[in-house]
Amino acid sequence: MDEFTFIDRVKRKASRGPRVFLGIGDDAAIMDVSIGTQLVVATDAVVENVDFRLTELSPEKIGHKALAVNLSDLAAMGARPVAFVITIGKPQGLSPGWLLRFYDGLLRTARAYGVACAGGDVSRSKEFFANVTILGEVKKGRAVTRSGAAVGDFIGVTGKLGGSIRKHHFDFPPRLREGIFLARGRFATAMIDISDGLIQDLSHILKASKVGAAVDLARVPVSRDAQELSAGQLRKARLRALSDGEDFELLFTVRPRRKKELDKIWRSKFPGLPLTWIGRIERGDSKIRWKREGKNVRGPGKAKKGYIHF
Amino acid sequence: MDEFTFIDRVKRKASRGPRVFLGIGDDAAIMDVSIGTQLVVATDAVVENVDFRLTELSPEKIGHKALAVNLSDLAAMGARPVAFVITIGKPQGLSPGWLLRFYDGLLRTARAYGVACAGGDVSRSKEFFANVTILGEVKKGRAVTRSGAAVGDFIGVTGKLGGSIRKHHFDFPPRLREGIFLARGRFATAMIDISDGLIQDLSHILKASKVGAAVDLARVPVSRDAQELSAGQLRKARLRALSDGEDFELLFTVRPRRKKELDKIWRSKFPGLPLTWIGRIERGDSKIRWKREGKNVRGPGKAKKGYIHF
Repeated sequence: MDEFTFIDRVKRKASRGPRVFLGIGDDAAIMDVSIGTQLVVATDAVVENVDFRLTELSPEKIGHKALAVNLSDLAAMGARPVAFVITIGKPQGLSPGWLLRFYDGLLRTARAYGVACAGGDVSRSKEFFANVTILGEVKKGRAVTRSGAAVGDFIGVTGKLGGSIRKHHFDFPPRLREGIFLARGRFATAMIDISDGLIQDLSHILKASKVGAAVDLARVPVSRDAQELSAGQLRKARLRALSDGEDFELLFTVRPRRKKELDKIWRSKFPGLPLTWIGRIERGDSKIRWKREGKNVRGPGKAKKGYIHF
Repeated sequence: MDEFTFIDRVKRKASRGPRVFLGIGDDAAIMDVSIGTQLVVATDAVVENVDFRLTELSPEKIGHKALAVNLSDLAAMGARPVAFVITIGKPQGLSPGWLLRFYDGLLRTARAYGVACAGGDVSRSKEFFANVTILGEVKKGRAVTRSGAAVGDFIGVTGKLGGSIRKHHFDFPPRLREGIFLARGRFATAMIDISDGLIQDLSHILKASKVGAAVDLARVPVSRDAQELSAGQLRKARLRALSDGEDFELLFTVRPRRKKELDKIWRSKFPGLPLTWIGRIERGDSKIRWKREGKNVRGPGKAKKGYIHF
């Protein structure tokens, strides 16, 4: 199979979507834009031997993840996904069958979230990589950034945290509906998806918003995976919930006067997904103050640094 | 240097541009869109040991190329670049200094062509790669695709072809002004940038437009690099001009009644860049008929297949 036959096959499988004026197959894709909206753009890559091993997982799951990490970024802005482009780095030995299954997983997730594949590029490389750039839209001025948290805001988190290494980081559902809901209802004042771990991602919000936070350790929702990985030791499980990466849950802040309303709507709108209040924003230079049942306690230690050490 | 310090440094150097509402540093970038335009999106990667070796070239030139190949795609659509995002795959041993010089080259080219860096991502990888996704815009309905060539159209090409392997493929100027001019003046009916070689890229236009072409071998503009690489053997040099990749010149078609006007304006607008008419579109199923001084001749052989063999 040559490159062009392959592209033709993918093209037939890809849903174009009403907004893609010109899709796969030209020098570039052309998209229509809606009046009164802003364009939201995120890009993220999955790389063999960094994010996964080819033998460890089905190609469909890797395809899902390549798109889902980007959908999660749009969720964290409260943006609706429209289309994506993808660049593949393909090792010589990788079979066309593997790659077609990768695209099956990718395009199944694309259909599930209503996002069109607008184009892409295939390059050779020694290790497999897939880099997706996703384009979404949001009503003008309605995107939720990291910088809107104010003193007194409650800090909320969706789902349960930690232990995503037990494959959850490959089949997680990006919290798109939830993120869009939090933005449209103007509930979230700042928002991020948890990819580097709760401590680090909360620190990103604090730094961007120039505030601090008090977080109650006992309230951090610990996943079953984190508990099982810690053989029932709560302290270890909690540390995982605080610092494991790739949960892809949403972490956000809400004004005190909107909290009760949100709690009520959330339970009826997203009955299967816990929303937990773990603390509040306070004055402070990006500092997290740890509490347990109202008392100050020592924290779990310094937030680990960025994943990539230069 | 950790990831975040690095991002801060790049952020300070990157020009944001008036259309980037929110740039580097959040989950996604936010861009304003202009009314009456369509969004044009292209993506392309450069990969170590496929497109270059790290020891062979300065990091600045690799940075230039990572962006310029994408600018060339927009040029081929006649679109004006607005902003780009970039994903880097960074090997552990690569120094921060190298990467900062890479960004210097990238951002210098960005400034030269008026395109803003809106964000990106850094991942680890065994080999270095850089994947740029570029966003441009075009007046609604004015993008030039590959499918608009009609029987009788003249086939034009900018510059001279072949031998780009002598480093020209790392410092070529993307033909943006030229591509935008050809689209805005409604001169070009179909257009592509020459990345796979003249024969193959012309074939893309013919296939998309469902036509054939007659090309005069003697008229194909042969670069000095192609001549020197062929030690003065014209046949060899011409073969390079026909099939070497990465010239990044524009290949396009023009209605007969617009040709004279274009010739005149071109000479005054782009005095340093040759515009050569190499043939005409005719009926035929993507077939290229070769001529020399009006007579049919045997062609240089079958167009080589896509660069990537699956």
